[in-house]
Amino acid sequence: MRHILIIGIGAGNPEHMTVQAINALNRADVLFIPTKGEKKTELAELRRGICARYVTRAGSRTVEFAVPVRRTEGRSYVESVDDWHAGIAAAYEALLESELAEGQTGAFLVWGDPMLYDSTIRIVERVKTRGRVTFGYDVIPGITSLQALCASHRIPLNLVGKPVEITTGRRLAESFPHRNETAVVMLDGEQAFRKIEDPDAEIYWGAYLGTPDEIVIAGRLAEVKEQILEARAAARERMGWIMDIYLLRKGADFEE
Amino acid sequence: MRHILIIGIGAGNPEHMTVQAINALNRADVLFIPTKGEKKTELAELRRGICARYVTRAGSRTVEFAVPVRRTEGRSYVESVDDWHAGIAAAYEALLESELAEGQTGAFLVWGDPMLYDSTIRIVERVKTRGRVTFGYDVIPGITSLQALCASHRIPLNLVGKPVEITTGRRLAESFPHRNETAVVMLDGEQAFRKIEDPDAEIYWGAYLGTPDEIVIAGRLAEVKEQILEARAAARERMGWIMDIYLLRKGADFEE
Repeated sequence: MRHILIIGIGAGNPEHMTVQAINALNRADVLFIPTKGEKKTELAELRRGICARYVTRAGSRTVEFAVPVRRTEGRSYVESVDDWHAGIAAAYEALLESELAEGQTGAFLVWGDPMLYDSTIRIVERVKTRGRVTFGYDVIPGITSLQALCASHRIPLNLVGKPVEITTGRRLAESFPHRNETAVVMLDGEQAFRKIEDPDAEIYWGAYLGTPDEIVIAGRLAEVKEQILEARAAARERMGWIMDIYLLRKGADFEE
Repeated sequence: MRHILIIGIGAGNPEHMTVQAINALNRADVLFIPTKGEKKTELAELRRGICARYVTRAGSRTVEFAVPVRRTEGRSYVESVDDWHAGIAAAYEALLESELAEGQTGAFLVWGDPMLYDSTIRIVERVKTRGRVTFGYDVIPGITSLQALCASHRIPLNLVGKPVEITTGRRLAESFPHRNETAVVMLDGEQAFRKIEDPDAEIYWGAYLGTPDEIVIAGRLAEVKEQILEARAAARERMGWIMDIYLLRKGADFEE
């Protein structure tokens, strides 16, 4: 039977790689590498660098493949993601059939951790459910940008004994600050923090975390909002792409 | 100036160690190891095993220290934690003064990631604020039990585009299932999942994650609740201690 390893490779710092992930990389006969377009050449370079540094097994093969683009026109968000996943699942299935022989092991390298706002696990499950290719699979955790954010700012994620909500830009207004004192926003095309008006809110923001281009800004939201928007726009212009994340907090430890 | 490294060492599997954490261990002149009482000898053994496997620097020194016990009598939860942290901060300060010379680097090894339901960062900040010992410090992220849980169950943490709440047993009833479709409970002395009656809720439970004693159980909550309670009680009896975590979910991807 074929075997698949879904490997978390960390948030951008090659030293985020765990020993488990390095060993998994070296169990793979084939490393499947998505090509995501020319904009993010730095990310492709980082991933190649991780393979060059950690793959010591002789004879393993790298297979690059194109990831289908998500179509949003005339579809709801959920429909567009569902269609997109179906397209990626078909691509994965074709890859496994053509590039992975019976008894071989293939690896998918995932930024961050496959469990957090990534769909490799659910796409591999789709392929398994379709039943045309039979395989087993394992998941190897990796350091996420959320962890890199907290480490760079040297902050705990949660207040003492308090909950935390991890959410998206489009859903932030539902949760912060009235529902939870800590919210982390991981997918945000609209800089939803702009709309938070609470004078006590604090923000811990980071972009390109773990990479040489890392930028971090923290402070009272009302005071650093503009600085973050400007830094973000300038970095995006300079790099051609951006990946950022932020934590919003209201309140402090030991307030009842 | 003295320097401190707060290092996440993963959830129990020695191979959760990142390259960054291994390198940090080897920058330390002194490794500070808490002794947590005889009950958790397996944890102490695991930590010693991590040091034995990864510390290659000659001449680094290990200093074991007793962690003060939290007193709860006559105090609210928040007061008891506040007092406890003050006690630990005093112990850390004494350690740094007596065991770490000017210019040396000391490391605190933290299970999981220092950012998640751990107080080493805030205690080190207390010591810094007290000002009797001056030092700089860095935080190194590590794989958490939450990540080990999702990897072992091979599940994404979040539904597509949906938020997730990380919470405690005492606060679970506030959030699941009415506020969020996914809740993760990390500190739970009372098995709060027992009180969730929703017939559609599913649970993914794990104990001793990443260690040779790992146990995982998943299924519809109503159907596996008793099985988990029995497995948990039996394991706790056998081992003398337990560390467990669980994810509750209601709903599925692509439901709007």
